[in-house]
Amino acid sequence: MTPEEFRAAAHELVDWIADYRASVGERPVRSEVTPDWVRAALDGPPPEDPEDFASVVRDLSDVIVPGVTQTHSPGYYAWFPSNASLESVLGDMASSGVAALGITWQSAPALTEMEQVVTDWLRELCGLSTEWHGAIHDTASTACLVALLAARERATGLSEDRGGLQAEQLPVTVYASSQAHSSVTKGVLLAGFGRDNLRVVPVDPVTYAMDVDALRRMMAEDVAGGRRPGAVVASLGTTGTTAFDDVTAIVDVARTHGAWVHVDAAMAGSAMLLPECRELFRGVDGADSFGWNPHKWMGTILDCSLLYVRDVELLIRVFSTNPSYLRSTADGEVTQYKDWGIPLGRRFRAMKLWFHLRLAGAEAIRQRLRRDLANAQWLARAVQAESDWEVCAPVALQTVCLRHHPPGVTDPAALDAHQQAWAEAINATGRAFVTPAQVEGRWLVRVSIGAEATELDDVAALWALCRESVRAVNP
Amino acid sequence: MTPEEFRAAAHELVDWIADYRASVGERPVRSEVTPDWVRAALDGPPPEDPEDFASVVRDLSDVIVPGVTQTHSPGYYAWFPSNASLESVLGDMASSGVAALGITWQSAPALTEMEQVVTDWLRELCGLSTEWHGAIHDTASTACLVALLAARERATGLSEDRGGLQAEQLPVTVYASSQAHSSVTKGVLLAGFGRDNLRVVPVDPVTYAMDVDALRRMMAEDVAGGRRPGAVVASLGTTGTTAFDDVTAIVDVARTHGAWVHVDAAMAGSAMLLPECRELFRGVDGADSFGWNPHKWMGTILDCSLLYVRDVELLIRVFSTNPSYLRSTADGEVTQYKDWGIPLGRRFRAMKLWFHLRLAGAEAIRQRLRRDLANAQWLARAVQAESDWEVCAPVALQTVCLRHHPPGVTDPAALDAHQQAWAEAINATGRAFVTPAQVEGRWLVRVSIGAEATELDDVAALWALCRESVRAVNP
Repeated sequence: MTPEEFRAAAHELVDWIADYRASVGERPVRSEVTPDWVRAALDGPPPEDPEDFASVVRDLSDVIVPGVTQTHSPGYYAWFPSNASLESVLGDMASSGVAALGITWQSAPALTEMEQVVTDWLRELCGLSTEWHGAIHDTASTACLVALLAARERATGLSEDRGGLQAEQLPVTVYASSQAHSSVTKGVLLAGFGRDNLRVVPVDPVTYAMDVDALRRMMAEDVAGGRRPGAVVASLGTTGTTAFDDVTAIVDVARTHGAWVHVDAAMAGSAMLLPECRELFRGVDGADSFGWNPHKWMGTILDCSLLYVRDVELLIRVFSTNPSYLRSTADGEVTQYKDWGIPLGRRFRAMKLWFHLRLAGAEAIRQRLRRDLANAQWLARAVQAESDWEVCAPVALQTVCLRHHPPGVTDPAALDAHQQAWAEAINATGRAFVTPAQVEGRWLVRVSIGAEATELDDVAALWALCRESVRAVNP
Repeated sequence: MTPEEFRAAAHELVDWIADYRASVGERPVRSEVTPDWVRAALDGPPPEDPEDFASVVRDLSDVIVPGVTQTHSPGYYAWFPSNASLESVLGDMASSGVAALGITWQSAPALTEMEQVVTDWLRELCGLSTEWHGAIHDTASTACLVALLAARERATGLSEDRGGLQAEQLPVTVYASSQAHSSVTKGVLLAGFGRDNLRVVPVDPVTYAMDVDALRRMMAEDVAGGRRPGAVVASLGTTGTTAFDDVTAIVDVARTHGAWVHVDAAMAGSAMLLPECRELFRGVDGADSFGWNPHKWMGTILDCSLLYVRDVELLIRVFSTNPSYLRSTADGEVTQYKDWGIPLGRRFRAMKLWFHLRLAGAEAIRQRLRRDLANAQWLARAVQAESDWEVCAPVALQTVCLRHHPPGVTDPAALDAHQQAWAEAINATGRAFVTPAQVEGRWLVRVSIGAEATELDDVAALWALCRESVRAVNP
């Protein structure tokens, strides 16, 4: 395809994208396609000859759009916000257009140095210490694994350079609360620690924050039992209820044993942009690594997950490679992000953050986040005013966790089934999409406000829909 | 930013991209910026207020373009081809425009099912067995790590569900040739095996392929020494010289010990599209995992790395997570790619392969690959015709490894320095970019043909430049 053929097709595609993004509110929020419907529509032998651009665009409209959940809809309250601001979409397009090869500093100095600029910008906007050094990873799962690998190597004095975990005499243990994200367990298993060496720390029954006294006891027991506490993952803004662990207290306990503290604030990190929310993040500067995802609430298109570490030298010792064909005269003077994580090659991910921040400006982003916090408080108050409804976790940010108590129903299993039923009734309307979740054994429904398009009127409409839905499923 | 504001800006950006891609051949191939030049140009306080789109685009032209190596230039022969066909750029733009959330099948059924379709298409186009199941990862480094983790868990009977590698009595060993990519060592270290358990298998001094007899001996010694051979990484198309290990023989040896065989064909995999090249890949269907990167020679924009495995059930056991908030009624019927690798969230990466294959057609891609193979043979013949030049590795594909022997110079260190000097002389012209590399202790210069824009005339011009450069550095 020549640049001129590309120009014509890309202009068409831009109009398609603008039309699509303008119309997301008119579509069912949850994708209603059945398993294999998309596959059947797209399948066939591999294309041997060029097809018309028009037929590809037609499939985008007819197959792809019905086949995705409309996370940009004002009715999207599922999982966590997954915004893709149009400023950041432009940045992602520029990244694709430049199509740089990010393997070393030399292959694309601008890719490396823009990443330094934007990770520093966000560090400053979040009020973090200048001791942090940031890089962009694909997701918080990867960032957590990278942190756990660094922790493993610190705990074992760089065992990777000897016999690895295989040659260690004393098992290294890792701690996280029962409300930590599933990626923490996954990271612990992938890093080779083993499930037997993961300690699930209980949480406070009201706040769902880690019970730090329990952490202290578990660590002491492990040390007494001949094990080495290697890492603690503190969660700020858990997936279930956006609970906040007390990082200051966790760091104090961890420091006694030299354990690494990774702070997973994948969702909540966006709130650090708001000075009035910073208290929730107290103690973060004392941790060893800190990750959060601009690709959630803040709205820089996925994949854009930040990982900050303080001891970059250790990180580089754990992740570096330096084969001859990647050397250049600039080595030693420059940052080589290949040595800060798992992949060698990188997309120009910094571009989407750079476009987003420059074209939107930080202040407009803050205002939007404040709108969402206020909308969540509005919903929480409305729910609390109804005697048969319960807000069943602190509303620290923009996620409101609900349970409905139909008169006369007290059986826990029946109550759990009821929450799942009214959530499904909402989701089946196509007008909104919420996520049921099991938190410490009880099912509740998460209303995670924060899609860029969601205004107070939309939240009010959702609340009406919640009340309709409980009547519908429990007449 | 509203969809209408996006529309206007995106049309401007499309014109900028088309103009940029039309002009790459006029720019210096290697970025000549000095360390921190880009950073200084972009730095400043974080943007508080929105900036004009024009000023962002101006920085693209003035700072970003000079700050990246022009991998799309006809003069790009460095590392490996890093093509980004404009068809695939369109697909990447569509991915950004749809901005789907790929965490589970339910969050974006189309993202999952299109990935099944395109990985099946490429399996078929490569003539692979239908026993393979593919997924898209960011890079071959990640794919190799995923394969090594699966291998680790097979070798240890899923130790991650017990005490991890920490509780294993017999060390598990991993094997790869001295010419394997640096990501193999990195993957072995990150997976926790430890450097002491990585066996670097010697290579044939002429073909640089793994010495399989040595592999057999090393494995037998390890078993005799109380160790367990867990995995072998076979390289097809090494980074140094595109050497091909004998996968059939490696699989035979590995099978004796139940060791996993991962085939890393990151660069060379594109050649499987050509039936006449399939012999180089003989035995691949007997391996346990097989990875290659359409984002290299084939030209689907980075990041697009394929990993095929045969035992998907094992993969899922190693990588799965299933928290309550990610469950849906479709579970069990559908593919959950979150359980096939490290990250939970995924971009709609299948889109770029789907656009590329549909808009270009497989036959046009094959013709381009054949052109590059012929150009490499042309260069090899031209070099061999000159008595002071040496083609110092078999030209299996599109990479030609050269050494120049100036009359009277026999000192190995002086010869090595000379190769680096003439390569640097070429690169400093800005007209072409080649990579020196150290292969089994000797420096050579890699001319890796295969940028989409590179025609025979360009290769002929490079050859003239090579001869000029050796005169310039050794007058």
